[in-house]
Amino acid sequence: MFKKFVPAFEWLTAYKKTDLTGDMSAGLIVAIMLIPQGMAYAMLAGLPPVIGLYASTVPLIIYALFGTSRQLAVGPVAMVSLLVLTGVSTITDPGTSDYISLVLLLTLMIGVIQLLMGLFKLGFLVNFMSHAVISGFTSAAAIIIGLSQLKHLIGVRLEADKNVFLIMIETVNRLSEINPITLGIGLISIGLLLTLKKIVKRVPAPLIIVLLSTLTVYYFEWHQSGVSIVGNVPSGLPSLSLPVINVKALIQLLPIALTIAFVGFMESIAMAKAIAAKEKYKVMPNKELRGLGLANIGSSFFSGFPVTGGFSRSAVNYQSGARTPLATIITAILIILTLIFFTEWFYYLPNAVLAAIIMVAVYSLIDFREVKQLLKINKVDGSVWLVTFLTTLIFGIVEGILIGIIYSLLIFVWRSAYPHVAELGYLQKEHVYRNIKRYPEVTTEQDILIFRFDSSLFFANISFYEEKLGQRLVDKSETKWVILDFSGVNSIDAVALHALEDMTKTQSYEHEVTFLFSGVKGPVKDLIIRAEWGEEYEKHIHYLSINHAHKTIKAGDIGA
Amino acid sequence: MFKKFVPAFEWLTAYKKTDLTGDMSAGLIVAIMLIPQGMAYAMLAGLPPVIGLYASTVPLIIYALFGTSRQLAVGPVAMVSLLVLTGVSTITDPGTSDYISLVLLLTLMIGVIQLLMGLFKLGFLVNFMSHAVISGFTSAAAIIIGLSQLKHLIGVRLEADKNVFLIMIETVNRLSEINPITLGIGLISIGLLLTLKKIVKRVPAPLIIVLLSTLTVYYFEWHQSGVSIVGNVPSGLPSLSLPVINVKALIQLLPIALTIAFVGFMESIAMAKAIAAKEKYKVMPNKELRGLGLANIGSSFFSGFPVTGGFSRSAVNYQSGARTPLATIITAILIILTLIFFTEWFYYLPNAVLAAIIMVAVYSLIDFREVKQLLKINKVDGSVWLVTFLTTLIFGIVEGILIGIIYSLLIFVWRSAYPHVAELGYLQKEHVYRNIKRYPEVTTEQDILIFRFDSSLFFANISFYEEKLGQRLVDKSETKWVILDFSGVNSIDAVALHALEDMTKTQSYEHEVTFLFSGVKGPVKDLIIRAEWGEEYEKHIHYLSINHAHKTIKAGDIGA
Repeated sequence: MFKKFVPAFEWLTAYKKTDLTGDMSAGLIVAIMLIPQGMAYAMLAGLPPVIGLYASTVPLIIYALFGTSRQLAVGPVAMVSLLVLTGVSTITDPGTSDYISLVLLLTLMIGVIQLLMGLFKLGFLVNFMSHAVISGFTSAAAIIIGLSQLKHLIGVRLEADKNVFLIMIETVNRLSEINPITLGIGLISIGLLLTLKKIVKRVPAPLIIVLLSTLTVYYFEWHQSGVSIVGNVPSGLPSLSLPVINVKALIQLLPIALTIAFVGFMESIAMAKAIAAKEKYKVMPNKELRGLGLANIGSSFFSGFPVTGGFSRSAVNYQSGARTPLATIITAILIILTLIFFTEWFYYLPNAVLAAIIMVAVYSLIDFREVKQLLKINKVDGSVWLVTFLTTLIFGIVEGILIGIIYSLLIFVWRSAYPHVAELGYLQKEHVYRNIKRYPEVTTEQDILIFRFDSSLFFANISFYEEKLGQRLVDKSETKWVILDFSGVNSIDAVALHALEDMTKTQSYEHEVTFLFSGVKGPVKDLIIRAEWGEEYEKHIHYLSINHAHKTIKAGDIGA
Repeated sequence: MFKKFVPAFEWLTAYKKTDLTGDMSAGLIVAIMLIPQGMAYAMLAGLPPVIGLYASTVPLIIYALFGTSRQLAVGPVAMVSLLVLTGVSTITDPGTSDYISLVLLLTLMIGVIQLLMGLFKLGFLVNFMSHAVISGFTSAAAIIIGLSQLKHLIGVRLEADKNVFLIMIETVNRLSEINPITLGIGLISIGLLLTLKKIVKRVPAPLIIVLLSTLTVYYFEWHQSGVSIVGNVPSGLPSLSLPVINVKALIQLLPIALTIAFVGFMESIAMAKAIAAKEKYKVMPNKELRGLGLANIGSSFFSGFPVTGGFSRSAVNYQSGARTPLATIITAILIILTLIFFTEWFYYLPNAVLAAIIMVAVYSLIDFREVKQLLKINKVDGSVWLVTFLTTLIFGIVEGILIGIIYSLLIFVWRSAYPHVAELGYLQKEHVYRNIKRYPEVTTEQDILIFRFDSSLFFANISFYEEKLGQRLVDKSETKWVILDFSGVNSIDAVALHALEDMTKTQSYEHEVTFLFSGVKGPVKDLIIRAEWGEEYEKHIHYLSINHAHKTIKAGDIGA
């Protein structure tokens, strides 16, 4: 019972000493990444940097105990931080204390939503998000996140912060206000982040630029020349406090809470699954939801903000040798130590460096190759990517994800409503029946029409089917027998079933033909029998293959 | 060119004298039905009765010229009238002159929407409305319409008019206020409408009760005893006038205009198609939309309200022998004559009689048999009916139709995301491969797994497929060859295609198996080739049947 709800028992009781080295080194490296990233993402979310550190303590420990992924690195991530800014800044301005308490409430809501989704086993919902939607959405969000940091990089307080077009226009208009030192620090940081990675793989580039830039600003006193710095970061641990619950805010925050709960879970589960597949263990989507939910609830009680499993840190955690969630616990302990002893070291850290870290982190999320590949295979599938990308960029991220999901589902429905149909002929050499258009060498008979409908039958395509078949019956007027190849009809709904009965009876009568159904699958046959079409029709639904139906006709066992 | 846009040319130029008798008698009978119905439906829509007569003149002539159905009887109908009341009464109170001008604007909007839908060929949209949704929605709307007339039948001015529960509660609370004469007239009218129909089929029951009740009220002066009567109906034709266009109202009315444009078209096309199928001619959905759109635009210019093709009058028109739209033109002319010469005859007509006509007309639309049948075949399909019915009854008709459509589409997506899968074995006697669960007598081989997936592959079901197949491969650990029967895979999207490639390659490697694809349909094969999986995999997608794949394995032509 207890074991079932605390997955950590499994790895704790089976912990091997050999795992410790990997866990220690991964925990350390992730902590080194997480300290600047946590502060940077808090800033992106419109919060004081220290909140990012708070969110990197308790929630990590909770996830380590309740999550099912052994290598997922939970904590603040860029996408969720942007969503927090988007949602809460429409209610009140970032930088106020109201803003912080709304973020805490939002974090609690996200936690509760994820926990409930896990308890009600709604983890499957993530399957309904097409990879094309995820990729298009992530690419656009990455651009928005990157541009939202431009103000820190150039040292100009831009008014626009979420609309990429407004940001670009304002930037051009205010080129003269750019602070050259800030821009210099930012560009050099970006350069180092990109090149150090390529030259020496084991060097934690963010740590180096954090140290270098802090020392440089301190030495040259650049904060006196308009270089914006992190400033005072309060030391010590966050105290336990209950988020203020306010019904009006609760309702206003609900849409963004649902979006973050969903997007956060999606990012997390995608990464967890990818690593689990390589390591051959299983992550349980619903337990993951519970783990993330509890982590977020914990975050809201300890002055944090929403967390989830991030792509880049998880990859680093895994590659640095993490074997169990102990690595994550070690990360959390190191951040706690940092909060107690080292916060004053961040005083001179320039914001431009944090902006550079965010920009480099999100740049790799922009994936234009994906859309190219999709367009090559199928223009319509490529359009899903493009629609999601453009909607996200132009109308906003919540709108983008919603429209992307709806559009991708509508395309599936649309395809099923106007499916491929084929008239079949006999391919003598191979003893099979195939599309007469693709195999012109097939033989056909004047009085037998063999027709295949390549879709499950449902209310939206039954009239299309009827029309196509009716047309063919008019053209091929000598037809006496119609063999409907049902091997592609995977399911049928009650409305289509009724319409199919009507069609069969009407066309039998109008065109003086007999219908034979071949290759009807079990579940479809069950429904036809339940619908009670009458013996005259039901006796013709049992032919296991077109061959059998054809033989029956040729044997003269049935009249026209 | 001209001919293309005015379908009437076809029947006008080919008009046969023999058609005239049928057209004349049908035109007359429909006019006799339409006069009381038109007034009744105008009343239902919260409008003066004469508006119902206006809407039965010009719009009918326009439809006769531009529509493609030869027997459809266009005019005011109950469902659309209720929608008008629902939509406009939230903006202003019925009975005011503002209300009438808003209805005229709404009518114009509906006309323009339908015309545009026709020009942009959006008629196909109606296919996405499941018959279960239509039936559930219509049944609930019929109950709402029937109960909304209760106030006229019992002679009590009820406050509630659209919420069936409130209507019933208020009626019970105010039982003492019932006007016994009004109720008597109403009940006798209902009795006569129901019985006369059954006894003598050719007698126009509505005409008889209109005449009888008018004379009785006049003779006994019951209007002095609280029996509500139609009162003064202005005589003469409506004058041409432009609806007042007001941007704020335009925006407020847009949702209801879209709903009516869609529902009206749906009712119209369903009836038109049913008759056309019997008479073996074709109605063109997009031309129908243009015809209805122009009719509604005409209605808005001549003080009418929204019209569409109704079920009951169209049936009567057809059964009374209408051969061409001339019947509709004759109906319109008779209504024009009525407006010029006979409006004062309606002075003493009791409203209870009009209410009785509406109630009897909509009663036949309540179709509980449909839901019973759906539930018998499939509980989920029955739930579509129930959800639509209950949502319409409880939340309102626009909400009901919208939720019904969304719910029915989601069910289709859901079904496709969790499809039926089967492992196949060889049925020796019949030379086919079938599900081993349904045919326990099939033979299987230890090193060959034959797997069939009963669905098109798309982003939402590919992971389900992967899981099912992976599980089976673990259980059947001696497998060396996997034959994937793709006869049920009707289509594949680019996301699923990519995932399928990943899956094939990963599982080939992990389980040391070779994949063979059999019965891959042309369109699916095209996409696989376009995705460039590599020769090693592509050479195994061409087996035309399971038999061929199996033979290839047995022949030892491929390695494991």
